[in-house]
Amino acid sequence: MNIAVQVAQIASEARQASFVMSRLGTKAKNDMLLAMAEALQAQAPQLIAENAKDLEIGRQKGLSNAMLDRLMLDEKRIAAVADALREVAALPDPVGEVTKMWKRPNELMVGKMRIPLGVIGIIYEARPNVTADAAALCLKAGNAVILRGGSEAINSNLAIAGILQSVMAKQGIPTAALSLIPFTEREGVLEMLKQEELIDLIIPRGGESLIRFVVENSRIPVIKHYKGVCHVYVDDKADFDMAERIIINAKTQRPGVCNALETVLIHKDAAAGFIPRIAVTLSDLGVELRGDEAFRILAPIAKAADESDWHAEYLELILACKVVDDMDAAIAHINRYGSLHTESIITSDYSKAQRFIREVNSSCVMVNASTRFADGNQLGLGAEIGISTTKLHSFGPMGLEDLTTTKFIVYGDGQVRE
Amino acid sequence: MNIAVQVAQIASEARQASFVMSRLGTKAKNDMLLAMAEALQAQAPQLIAENAKDLEIGRQKGLSNAMLDRLMLDEKRIAAVADALREVAALPDPVGEVTKMWKRPNELMVGKMRIPLGVIGIIYEARPNVTADAAALCLKAGNAVILRGGSEAINSNLAIAGILQSVMAKQGIPTAALSLIPFTEREGVLEMLKQEELIDLIIPRGGESLIRFVVENSRIPVIKHYKGVCHVYVDDKADFDMAERIIINAKTQRPGVCNALETVLIHKDAAAGFIPRIAVTLSDLGVELRGDEAFRILAPIAKAADESDWHAEYLELILACKVVDDMDAAIAHINRYGSLHTESIITSDYSKAQRFIREVNSSCVMVNASTRFADGNQLGLGAEIGISTTKLHSFGPMGLEDLTTTKFIVYGDGQVRE
Repeated sequence: MNIAVQVAQIASEARQASFVMSRLGTKAKNDMLLAMAEALQAQAPQLIAENAKDLEIGRQKGLSNAMLDRLMLDEKRIAAVADALREVAALPDPVGEVTKMWKRPNELMVGKMRIPLGVIGIIYEARPNVTADAAALCLKAGNAVILRGGSEAINSNLAIAGILQSVMAKQGIPTAALSLIPFTEREGVLEMLKQEELIDLIIPRGGESLIRFVVENSRIPVIKHYKGVCHVYVDDKADFDMAERIIINAKTQRPGVCNALETVLIHKDAAAGFIPRIAVTLSDLGVELRGDEAFRILAPIAKAADESDWHAEYLELILACKVVDDMDAAIAHINRYGSLHTESIITSDYSKAQRFIREVNSSCVMVNASTRFADGNQLGLGAEIGISTTKLHSFGPMGLEDLTTTKFIVYGDGQVRE
Repeated sequence: MNIAVQVAQIASEARQASFVMSRLGTKAKNDMLLAMAEALQAQAPQLIAENAKDLEIGRQKGLSNAMLDRLMLDEKRIAAVADALREVAALPDPVGEVTKMWKRPNELMVGKMRIPLGVIGIIYEARPNVTADAAALCLKAGNAVILRGGSEAINSNLAIAGILQSVMAKQGIPTAALSLIPFTEREGVLEMLKQEELIDLIIPRGGESLIRFVVENSRIPVIKHYKGVCHVYVDDKADFDMAERIIINAKTQRPGVCNALETVLIHKDAAAGFIPRIAVTLSDLGVELRGDEAFRILAPIAKAADESDWHAEYLELILACKVVDDMDAAIAHINRYGSLHTESIITSDYSKAQRFIREVNSSCVMVNASTRFADGNQLGLGAEIGISTTKLHSFGPMGLEDLTTTKFIVYGDGQVRE
């Protein structure tokens, strides 16, 4: 059977299964997730054997050690994947929640009730744990899910999906609610992206080139985020100890992730007091500084920043630094160069804190906190399905609720329209 | 200047203006809308003169009388447009609302705050009132708006936009926050749909072919609804008087709109008692009935329905009628043929009412009420910007809130991530 026909078939069966999933009770969904966690651990040896095939092919292909490490599954990692499923089981079920309800003058009761989105497609790279994580979140929110993982992990992914599906079959849940596209050809992705009548949402997880490929080829809505150019603005009314602690944390605690700090903006009246000390501290921690002229006067160790530095998502121990005239100049810089991800002001001034919160329209806006908190788990959403830096549907870290929508519900007793 | 360059310029200036709009206070926005209403009425003579040009060209082109009527502006219609602006001014401002807030174990306070979407593009057909209505809703929600109306109304639309912009200029609000694409060529639309970096959302308003054209050519997210195939399910536990009243209202009160009733599903145990009477009543009201065999046995006046009738959005006095075995069969029919618009159950059975509300995942699900209530105004949202039958971002009638998104806000006192 050719790829186009087979993908259309998978999508069509997923759509049918989504009707069953949308009606599945909370207990049935949680029991399924807990049994999936058990099954993954019970079948770890088989899973590790399938994973070994991917690792062997990867080595032959010359994948980097970092790539091979991300691909690798062992008992401990499988236990972590199982625990992640148990955590999703423990989250509250968003489906059926009535988020508000009001009465109309004609006594109609009108409300909004959370319902699943329907069928969600996840397109991701070579991390087999995503197969279980993403599936669990989609299913818990009452959706059917179609997974398309990286070709490097195809044997591992098929094994994981097979284990999860066998649990579903045992519990009388249609296995079509969790499908894995079984081809590694790019055509499989392209066909998936054409199923606009059957798939409600596509979430790509991976590097910028994967995401751009998906966006350019999809007729289905895509929730995405390309990069995180996160800013900390150090106000003239900042507590410098706190500012230093937050900048060190945001830049160095895990520099390779999207919520790490990339640019510091410093109020000109804070410059003399703050720049010399932060330059020393950060240099001692191995951070390369790139500053504008005003910054470099006070921190000669810094290299000269050019226009590209203000746009840069370094993802390593490099920090762009700029002196600004005031908070408005900082906000203007963020509007111009930011990626709508996360920005934090360090200040003890009440009005400025409130104004920064109101006026900066990135997906996470913080006062006196590290940008590293911009994460579904850290913000209290539970497990995270992704981050959106586009404003439609979801903006910022996305949890279970973001895999649902709301319908209007109307309770009447015979009302007709005049 | 060529069209592509000029549209890109409009979009770029709209983006800049959107930053100003997002910070504009509620009073400033309301004052602007009220002054716009005044200005439209004060300049009615000039507006009517410009509208006369469109009407004359339309007559030469051979537009239908119905089209010419939709295009026509007079004092009374201009007053209605002005009143619509006053109603938008009276609506609560959604921007800045904190929809929830919670505390994390590390004492971070995390919340979600409503913010404008940014720049919204509205693409619509030949009704000049949309120019003012849609602009008012977008601006009130703190957005910039780019309008592209039908070519038949270009002089009227330019005149309305000019009046609104002159009010903005007087009040120190950047006029780039409200732009009208001044070309009638289709290229103007196509260029608009390419500005994915500058426009956040496209809302097409018009017939199915306009909407399909926009969806197929847009790189920007589109909120849309193609059609409304609305169902009423008459349960065996229905009050037949109520069912009849609701069906008559839903089918005949205004048959040409998307929330009008198109298909009635009748429980087999209600058939003998209900079908003969409703067949007579509806026929007397001039409604053509098309039924399945079971329906026609009890209502010989009905024509035979075929597969296409279950898909049909008639928008006229025709009604498809079908007998179903039970509520599950009714829901299965809705899932297969429905358009996710609006469905209503007529029943006095508590459990079935609750189950219908839960299990039917159309954008409006009702109990004992006419489908004609599926409308932003009727549901209490205030003025409606459109209806979405896709589940992303908004589902169902859309009001001011749907022109916003939420950002995360985080209040800390120096927290860093462990």
